[in-house]
Amino acid sequence: MKTLIKAVHVLTIDDQMTEYKNGYVLIDGEEIVEVGEWLEQEIAADEIVDGQGGLLLPGFINTHTHVGMIPFRSLGDDVPDRLRRFLFPLEAYMTRELAAASSAYAISEMLLSGVTGFCDMYYFEDQVAEVCDRFGVRAIVGETIIDMPTCDSEEPSGGLSYCEDFIPKWKNHPLITPAIAPHAPNTNSYGVLKKIVEMSHDYQVPITMHVAEMDYELIELAEEHQQTPFELLESLGYMERPFIMAHCIHMTDSDIALTAAHAKNARIAHCIGANTKSAKGVAPVKSMLKARLTVGLGTDGPSSGNTLDLFTQMKLFANFHKTYEKDRALFPAKDIVRLATKGGAETLGFDEVGSIEAGKKADMILVETQSVNMFPIFDPYSALVYSANSSNVEHVWVNGKQLVKEHQLIAHDLREIREELYNQMGQFVAEAKKRM
Amino acid sequence: MKTLIKAVHVLTIDDQMTEYKNGYVLIDGEEIVEVGEWLEQEIAADEIVDGQGGLLLPGFINTHTHVGMIPFRSLGDDVPDRLRRFLFPLEAYMTRELAAASSAYAISEMLLSGVTGFCDMYYFEDQVAEVCDRFGVRAIVGETIIDMPTCDSEEPSGGLSYCEDFIPKWKNHPLITPAIAPHAPNTNSYGVLKKIVEMSHDYQVPITMHVAEMDYELIELAEEHQQTPFELLESLGYMERPFIMAHCIHMTDSDIALTAAHAKNARIAHCIGANTKSAKGVAPVKSMLKARLTVGLGTDGPSSGNTLDLFTQMKLFANFHKTYEKDRALFPAKDIVRLATKGGAETLGFDEVGSIEAGKKADMILVETQSVNMFPIFDPYSALVYSANSSNVEHVWVNGKQLVKEHQLIAHDLREIREELYNQMGQFVAEAKKRM
Repeated sequence: MKTLIKAVHVLTIDDQMTEYKNGYVLIDGEEIVEVGEWLEQEIAADEIVDGQGGLLLPGFINTHTHVGMIPFRSLGDDVPDRLRRFLFPLEAYMTRELAAASSAYAISEMLLSGVTGFCDMYYFEDQVAEVCDRFGVRAIVGETIIDMPTCDSEEPSGGLSYCEDFIPKWKNHPLITPAIAPHAPNTNSYGVLKKIVEMSHDYQVPITMHVAEMDYELIELAEEHQQTPFELLESLGYMERPFIMAHCIHMTDSDIALTAAHAKNARIAHCIGANTKSAKGVAPVKSMLKARLTVGLGTDGPSSGNTLDLFTQMKLFANFHKTYEKDRALFPAKDIVRLATKGGAETLGFDEVGSIEAGKKADMILVETQSVNMFPIFDPYSALVYSANSSNVEHVWVNGKQLVKEHQLIAHDLREIREELYNQMGQFVAEAKKRM
Repeated sequence: MKTLIKAVHVLTIDDQMTEYKNGYVLIDGEEIVEVGEWLEQEIAADEIVDGQGGLLLPGFINTHTHVGMIPFRSLGDDVPDRLRRFLFPLEAYMTRELAAASSAYAISEMLLSGVTGFCDMYYFEDQVAEVCDRFGVRAIVGETIIDMPTCDSEEPSGGLSYCEDFIPKWKNHPLITPAIAPHAPNTNSYGVLKKIVEMSHDYQVPITMHVAEMDYELIELAEEHQQTPFELLESLGYMERPFIMAHCIHMTDSDIALTAAHAKNARIAHCIGANTKSAKGVAPVKSMLKARLTVGLGTDGPSSGNTLDLFTQMKLFANFHKTYEKDRALFPAKDIVRLATKGGAETLGFDEVGSIEAGKKADMILVETQSVNMFPIFDPYSALVYSANSSNVEHVWVNGKQLVKEHQLIAHDLREIREELYNQMGQFVAEAKKRM
């Protein structure tokens, strides 16, 4: 099956940031086989898509989220210590079926907003992986390990044994990578943290974890280990594994230097929206990038982010980092689009995607430029960062297959997905309302 | 003509922030005549709108923008001193026809994103007022006065004589308020600043102005007058006039106290998006509100904001002020929705709108909750601030008349408006490209 997409402004996000203003892309099966300027070539294709002058770019990569958490959205948004007041207690009412229904909803939302790949961590990740497989998205799915009973395990740290079934089951899937997801450095014992890194090595799977997100996390680790989170994790060998660290808000220059020595493995999922909505702070991304760390953008979960689209994150990224560093010229829009696409792919180790180049897998999105917010366009990156929103995403392809066409899911019915989620949310809602 | 809107969650934004979860509103002519919980009453109406469970709230008020500046959007976004490198030089290519075409485009964009009233300042404001009249929106239209030749006047400060025709022409329009718009305290001579305040008094019209936006503005005024912008303007009598001050980024506690003594007149148009995108800083809104100053939200112009919707501003407002004040509980979403609606109406002196109450003019919007980003909704204000975007705006009424229906302008064709703007932009684009 060959698909020719033409009449598009292609932002390849290759190493030279090549653009083709009247460009085309040819997909053959899962792969991009041609990309360039459209010169009325004779190209045989089974399907031709007229992009009507829209922007074609690599799909957005959401480097940190919790797809099971749609039920929490808009609940206690402005409440201090929401984690322990709302999130932990209500997780008791998370069921396997609710996690699956939430995942289907969240993945639909991401696809409709141009996210083609993501890194998840939560519970019932076997269900999450099944939903990913059903939708055909690219994902890392990380089962959470935490030192307390959880919705999918009566025993503290039960995620360890969950992983023993879960990881082998998904290990060789073409689009899905199972992972181990210790909740945070301060919510697992030293012994469990050691086991996790060993398990990552034994199974050859990545680790993803919340790191240096909470101010009290730093205090607890300083008291217990006299180390920063980064020092502790480095000493435990985490940075010798493929390791996706979410947040990293409280990262000193010395933490950055230490991590930079392991830059090939230890990468950062920066969640500016969630971090600033909760007043936790602004991670030092300028310094991270200066030290040649790999950084991608993440939305965090739908109760933190609160949307799962990268447009919101790009806009917040621009305004926060420019203002924090008092430099309007810092992070021009082009750099931010790169972070949200190629940067995310690098962060997740998705080497086969992240740019539109021959030989890459075809994970791409078309952002239309007919809507009122998308005119004029002197700079397509500016339009994406400062003007666009998720409603501008018109078509989405993952691994060569079109999953969204004219703003709608092709193979799934959003109304049914919402109804299933609504039906599964009954007890959760009743318990949530008691706490509001 | 009576319109009954039912099956809506009404956020009245009245003094008690009353909500009607299964609510209705009855419009008779220009006015809201009934609002309450729907109890299957017998109500005669010429038209019935089924809100399908959407959120009905007062229209957003954009307290500071430049509708003539659509041609500048996405041009030099990340360039230092863009004002003097791009904006001032390219304004030479702004024509009467281009200003009108841009205004029609910008007003369309605002209506489609739920903005029912705004305060404008730019050039050719007579054209802007004509377009406002044609679209039926509520607006303050302020002709800019600046100490240099402009696109609508060969003489420096030519706006003064422009106002002599412009103001009387629009003075008694039911929806349009002409205003005088000195560009900034440091871009007009002392003498002109004095004349402006006299003119505002003589014609009984408001003043709107950029105040304390630029760091060099403060330095220049300190050198010339040994005063802060607020001290200078207070001493000139500006604060005894209805006075809408845009930005106010560099406002000290003493400036706030001085302004608070004139809080009935001197009000603030806070433009968080534009201020932070340009790395200028975060205005001290917490302190302003504590001093009982009136504050509304503004997008600034489409080259600064870059969109003209208040959803983007609400989200940036939440995250920036929470993070700057290190307090997640500060400015809960409810307060932010109030600022974007009622707060804006108070800032512009639009006493007849800003809330959904019997006797008020019907400026209202329906935000649909069927789209993927709008579920679940435990808190409708959270959904508006943290999840919604302008594509969720389904219906818009201004002064009792429906202007947007099912996401489309009723009386205007967006394609034609865009085509007219495109046709008028030729020379501007050619000159802009020379500078890119």
